[in-house]
Amino acid sequence: MQLTKIIEKLKLSQSGIVDFKIKKNPNILTAASLEKAKENDISFLDNNSQLNLKHLIKTTKASALLLPADDNFIIEIVKQLTVDWILLKEPKIAFAEILEFLYPAEIEKEGIHKSAVIGDNVKIGPGVSIGANVYIGNNTEIGAGTIIHAGVVIYKKVRIGAKNFIHANSVIHSGSIIGNQCVINANAVIGGEGFGFVPTSNGWKKMPQVGIVILKNKVEIGSGSTIDRPSVGETIIGEDTKIDNLVQIGHGVTTGKGCAMAAQVGIAGGAQIGDAVILAGQVGVSNKVKIGDGVVASSKTGIISNVEAGEVVSGFPAMPNKLWLRCSANFKKLPEIVKAIRQLDRRNSR
Amino acid sequence: MQLTKIIEKLKLSQSGIVDFKIKKNPNILTAASLEKAKENDISFLDNNSQLNLKHLIKTTKASALLLPADDNFIIEIVKQLTVDWILLKEPKIAFAEILEFLYPAEIEKEGIHKSAVIGDNVKIGPGVSIGANVYIGNNTEIGAGTIIHAGVVIYKKVRIGAKNFIHANSVIHSGSIIGNQCVINANAVIGGEGFGFVPTSNGWKKMPQVGIVILKNKVEIGSGSTIDRPSVGETIIGEDTKIDNLVQIGHGVTTGKGCAMAAQVGIAGGAQIGDAVILAGQVGVSNKVKIGDGVVASSKTGIISNVEAGEVVSGFPAMPNKLWLRCSANFKKLPEIVKAIRQLDRRNSR
Amino acid sequence: MQLTKIIEKLKLSQSGIVDFKIKKNPNILTAASLEKAKENDISFLDNNSQLNLKHLIKTTKASALLLPADDNFIIEIVKQLTVDWILLKEPKIAFAEILEFLYPAEIEKEGIHKSAVIGDNVKIGPGVSIGANVYIGNNTEIGAGTIIHAGVVIYKKVRIGAKNFIHANSVIHSGSIIGNQCVINANAVIGGEGFGFVPTSNGWKKMPQVGIVILKNKVEIGSGSTIDRPSVGETIIGEDTKIDNLVQIGHGVTTGKGCAMAAQVGIAGGAQIGDAVILAGQVGVSNKVKIGDGVVASSKTGIISNVEAGEVVSGFPAMPNKLWLRCSANFKKLPEIVKAIRQLDRRNSR
Repeated sequence: MQLTKIIEKLKLSQSGIVDFKIKKNPNILTAASLEKAKENDISFLDNNSQLNLKHLIKTTKASALLLPADDNFIIEIVKQLTVDWILLKEPKIAFAEILEFLYPAEIEKEGIHKSAVIGDNVKIGPGVSIGANVYIGNNTEIGAGTIIHAGVVIYKKVRIGAKNFIHANSVIHSGSIIGNQCVINANAVIGGEGFGFVPTSNGWKKMPQVGIVILKNKVEIGSGSTIDRPSVGETIIGEDTKIDNLVQIGHGVTTGKGCAMAAQVGIAGGAQIGDAVILAGQVGVSNKVKIGDGVVASSKTGIISNVEAGEVVSGFPAMPNKLWLRCSANFKKLPEIVKAIRQLDRRNSR
Repeated sequence: MQLTKIIEKLKLSQSGIVDFKIKKNPNILTAASLEKAKENDISFLDNNSQLNLKHLIKTTKASALLLPADDNFIIEIVKQLTVDWILLKEPKIAFAEILEFLYPAEIEKEGIHKSAVIGDNVKIGPGVSIGANVYIGNNTEIGAGTIIHAGVVIYKKVRIGAKNFIHANSVIHSGSIIGNQCVINANAVIGGEGFGFVPTSNGWKKMPQVGIVILKNKVEIGSGSTIDRPSVGETIIGEDTKIDNLVQIGHGVTTGKGCAMAAQVGIAGGAQIGDAVILAGQVGVSNKVKIGDGVVASSKTGIISNVEAGEVVSGFPAMPNKLWLRCSANFKKLPEIVKAIRQLDRRNSR
Repeated sequence: MQLTKIIEKLKLSQSGIVDFKIKKNPNILTAASLEKAKENDISFLDNNSQLNLKHLIKTTKASALLLPADDNFIIEIVKQLTVDWILLKEPKIAFAEILEFLYPAEIEKEGIHKSAVIGDNVKIGPGVSIGANVYIGNNTEIGAGTIIHAGVVIYKKVRIGAKNFIHANSVIHSGSIIGNQCVINANAVIGGEGFGFVPTSNGWKKMPQVGIVILKNKVEIGSGSTIDRPSVGETIIGEDTKIDNLVQIGHGVTTGKGCAMAAQVGIAGGAQIGDAVILAGQVGVSNKVKIGDGVVASSKTGIISNVEAGEVVSGFPAMPNKLWLRCSANFKKLPEIVKAIRQLDRRNSR
């Protein structure tokens, strides 16, 4: 695709073109990082990049560059570049859009594979693709344009909306409700039974888990992640919430809109997560905890009590990030602290 | 189901009816939490609930309530309620039993699906259900009434007892022995090879893992959890032990009876866990560690050395929970501690 | 197998026979630990074993023993043993090799199962085994002697080398490149899409993930582990690197040769791991961090900044292991530390 054509497309986007220089108008075939790019590649530099990355734009072999318009250092450099460039408010968004143009999403097979096993009274919308060895239980609905890859198992009475991608060997349990434009990655499990057992004198009494899981529109679930259903009621993942790999969402959890949860996060039963909450890798949230809108927790944070909206927390138990940074720095001084106290004590005892 | 009929059934259970009031004798159709219940719902209040939950029993729209008999606050309130109620020693157990009455377990398909691939010399007991696209290797045995959902893969020479539920796309490796009344949730892996490599001058030498995994009766394994087999001997999960999602059990681990392990717990090879041990979410246990009966570890605890029976531990490395609570509280004071020492030092130097 | 025949085989190996005593020349049928061994079993004692294990060689019922040649305590004892024994430089390696002799790897089915679904233009080498209900996408290549177990899903344009084991229900995404002699365990996901979303005023903008995953020769991936592909370029797992269960490798990560990563490790996007790096269970590595050759991180370590080659690190944030040991020991003294400061303050205030 000629760079001029790419610019035309970007003008319709939210990436915000500010300026550009087209001299060679290269034919862009692929995309790559500044370091690895070669001829006919397009590459980009993010806003607020580190200085060593910025210098790469002078040496990269890419044929075209997407650059941040708000960076004086860059604005100086671009004048000297021989390569074609585009200055944008959001070069990363532009790069994402160009990847969409250059690499259209592929599906494995169109239509319904003859090896798929489809139950009774299953409603399948137009343009649905169902891969090899898929199983779909009775009374399930699949909305228009949804793509279900090989080996997926969908139990009974599941309602799946339109334009979803459901990757290989993932499992969706009975009663689950999936919105539109969701992505469920490979080997994820949606709607497995919550972990509920009551201690009795005869051992554990199992609490039946008869609730359901609801994924709202534009939810993405990572490979191998597990979203449990509750004993009664619903587990709800809010619209546009993105969940990475190997994440555990317990029974009865609700999350708001636009959250992001990195890999190996674990959220225990009944926790209530607000909108736009960011949880970094390996964060744990205890059961029934409430987390307000916009909270950010750094990696490995253990949240065992409620967190107010807008807080940035770290550590275990979670505390304000700034406090944690100071406490952690001082943790390394504990041997010195103990030594200092001993010296003081000795001096005082004289 | 009429409330009077529910009471009859509960009289046969271990939930311990103490008193009840039947006035409207509602037809109970579904179950829900106090907050979300509507007409014809039954709901419950657990023993030792928080005060704000207790107040909900005055406003809930449920048609019948299961309430704790040991709570004076509740006993006062119930006299004024217009809704029908039952006072019980164990209202949560009663609720679990009522869920069983109201929501009988469903299976996807009865019988053996024609797409299932079953090896040579496989013994299948009466009432077994085998779902679509299941694979069962040679010389495997499946006991009476066991339900195997779609896409499950069972390797050779596996012995599976009666009345088990094996959910979609889970995998059971060769030689594994599964008792009766177990639940293996979706995408779990039973009997994968342990992680054993010996360093040599030519790189890693693989230690063959020729042992097996044994799940005793009433064991439950969560979605995506992995139970590894050892190089020689057995990995054993004791009777009535319940394991949540995304839990890793290393090669040669043994657990006692009635344990509970929450999501994302990891137990390294050769650890020996006693009876009735409770491990909260994201706990780690180092290899060959021995944990005594009745030990409780709170979330994210890292157990790197033996723990005596009955201890409650927290933190990393694990310490008695009460000590950890005090240490954690003081961790937050580290900046003040350092400041105080500096001041003392300055005063002393004068 | 007669013990004399085992000795002949070991002479060809790197286990280093130093001495042996053959008296009964038992027929070795199986292998077991010292504690559990019975007649016709072979067992072993590792170098640097604990004293209580060493004493077991006097009481074990094994018919033959593999023992370390560098241990004076053992050398004294063996003279008195009635059982046959072999002294070796590397008894654990010898044990691994004997397990290979005694328990040849089994495959579920030879050839290509008739229920497998194989796309167009798929190249399949000689001696390949493809299990039941496997799906292989168009234009994929499978090298000689590779064994693919039931339920595996391989997307389009995947290149898989020779002599790999790919276990049940694992998933390999489009474009992935797998070397030779790799093991991919059950329910692992290779090449799932990286977790990349750019915040915009309209919610998350998805960054397409059009890169690939490369597993070099002799890589092993544990059950349920997930190796993500990047937006552009490659995620690379170096030769002979071994990855345990439920490990997350983020988009664009590269690892060197001969690394070992224990269960539930999580490595965030773009991290660069050197050769021979050892990460113990539940370790986390932040995005874009560089870890030098030979680094060892103990369990639960959180690595948030670069680590120099050869360092041994622990704690969160990671610090040198020796410092961490002292800090952790003093962490337990925090209540005493606070008390001591108060006393000093009181004395000073007088």
